[in-house]
Amino acid sequence: MAKAARAEGLAREIVAVGRRRESLEPALHDGAVDRITTDVAEGVAGSDFCILATPVATLASLLEEVWRAAPDDAVLTDVGSTKSHIVSAAEALGRARPLAFIGGHPMAGSERSGYPVARADLFKGALVILTPTASSVGSALARVREFWEALGARVMTLDPATHDRAVAAISHLPHLVADALVDAVLRMDPRFLDVAAAGFKDTTRVAASNPRVWREIFQDNREALAEALGAFRRALDDLDRLVAAGDATDIERELERIKRARERLS
Amino acid sequence: MAKAARAEGLAREIVAVGRRRESLEPALHDGAVDRITTDVAEGVAGSDFCILATPVATLASLLEEVWRAAPDDAVLTDVGSTKSHIVSAAEALGRARPLAFIGGHPMAGSERSGYPVARADLFKGALVILTPTASSVGSALARVREFWEALGARVMTLDPATHDRAVAAISHLPHLVADALVDAVLRMDPRFLDVAAAGFKDTTRVAASNPRVWREIFQDNREALAEALGAFRRALDDLDRLVAAGDATDIERELERIKRARERLS
Repeated sequence: MAKAARAEGLAREIVAVGRRRESLEPALHDGAVDRITTDVAEGVAGSDFCILATPVATLASLLEEVWRAAPDDAVLTDVGSTKSHIVSAAEALGRARPLAFIGGHPMAGSERSGYPVARADLFKGALVILTPTASSVGSALARVREFWEALGARVMTLDPATHDRAVAAISHLPHLVADALVDAVLRMDPRFLDVAAAGFKDTTRVAASNPRVWREIFQDNREALAEALGAFRRALDDLDRLVAAGDATDIERELERIKRARERLS
Repeated sequence: MAKAARAEGLAREIVAVGRRRESLEPALHDGAVDRITTDVAEGVAGSDFCILATPVATLASLLEEVWRAAPDDAVLTDVGSTKSHIVSAAEALGRARPLAFIGGHPMAGSERSGYPVARADLFKGALVILTPTASSVGSALARVREFWEALGARVMTLDPATHDRAVAAISHLPHLVADALVDAVLRMDPRFLDVAAAGFKDTTRVAASNPRVWREIFQDNREALAEALGAFRRALDDLDRLVAAGDATDIERELERIKRARERLS
C-alpha cells in the first residue's frame, strides 16, 4: 500500500510501523516510506490516516494501541480478511473515545508476502470491500473510499456479517479445500504429485500461503466457514450421487449449470 | 498436435479425421494438416502413425474402426484422460489382429477446445504419460515416446491402473471439487460471486470446462475417483476437526506440512 500510495502521490509523509526494523528497511531504502519505527505510538502520532495491516488475530489488540495514540481527527482503517470482530472491537473502543474507523478488505495479493514482492499496481482493478455500520462517520467512509479508488481499486460496501459469509464462500472455504486436495494426494500416494499438471497447480495455489495467517482467518471466521463447508459438502455429495447414478443427461445438465455460473466470473 | 507436429516437421503428410468437416477446415486452411476427411477408414489407410483424440466414451468404438483400417505396421496411440479401459480394449482387439497400440495422456491443454485455440508450443515442457503393458511392442513405445519428445514434452511411463489413480487424485477429484465449490457459493448466495477474487478464479478455473468431456471422464474413472474422493473427505474432515478444536500450534503444523508438499510443485 505504501508503494502504491507513494506512486500515486497520495501522502506528504508515509510512516511504516512494524515489529522488526529489518522488515521495514527495504521500503525505506526504496523511498516507498519516509520514516520507519517499531513504536506504534510514535508512528501514529501526528497521522491523519492510519491503515492497520497485520494478521487478523493481532488486529484487535493493535487497534487498541492505535486508538490511544491517534489524533482526534485521524481516520483509521484496516485490511483484515474478516470484518465482524474488528468492527465490533472498533465500536467498543469508540464508546470510550469517538474516533473514525472503517473496516476494509482489499481482495488482492498473493500467497507471497513482504516488501520485496510489493507492486505499486497491486490494487489496479482489484475489489476492495468496506464495511461501514450505522455508527460510521460518512466523511471517513468517503475518505477511505477515495484512497482505494486513487490506487485504482473498485470499492464495494457490505455489512460486516455479510462480508464474512461472502469471503468464507469464495476465499476461506476454497483455501481449506485446496489444503485438503493436496493432503488427499499425499494420503493416496505422494508420488502422484509428480504427475500434477497446470490444473492442479491452479486449484491448489492458495495451499502454499502462510500457515499462521490462514490459521487465524479460519479461527476468526469459523462460524461463516462452517456454513460454507456445509453448503460445499452438500454440493459435493449431490455431484457424487449424480455421477454414481450414471445418467449422462442429468450429469451434463448439472455441469453445464455450474460452468455457466463460473463463466460469469471471467 | 497437428499444428505442433507440422511446426517441428515430424510428418510428410498429416491427415485429420473428424465428424464434421467444418471443425477440420481451419486446420487445413492454416496448413497444419494436408488432408481432411470424415471417413475414418479413408483417413487411416496408408498411415504409419495414428493418434486418437476424442472424448473418452467414444475412444473404444473408434479404436475398433481404426484397428480394422490401419496398415499392419502402423503405430496407434491416443490422448484420453483415462487409460485402463482403452488399453484393455486394445489388448482385446490385439488378440484378433496384432497391431501396435500404446496408451497416452498428454497433461496439457486448457478448458477451451477447437483448432482456433491450438498452439504449436502447447506440449513444450508438458508431461506426457504413456501406459505400455507387458504385451506392448518395444519399438512402438519408443516411437510414441520420440514423437512426444520431439514436441518438447517430458515422457513418463505408468501402468494403466496407476495412471488412472494418479489422475483421479490430481485432476478428476480437483475438477469435481471445483464444481462443488462454485455450487456451494450459488447455494449460499449467488451474489457472493461478485466478490470472487483471483484466488477463487484460479481454484475454480477447471469448472468452466466442457461438461460432456468431464461427464465421460468422471464415469469412465469412477472407481479411482471414488478412492480419491474418500481420501479427500477424510482430509477435509480432519482439517475441519483441527480448526474446531482450536489449537493454534496443531493447526499451523498441519498447514505447514501441506504447504511444504504443495511447494514441491512449483
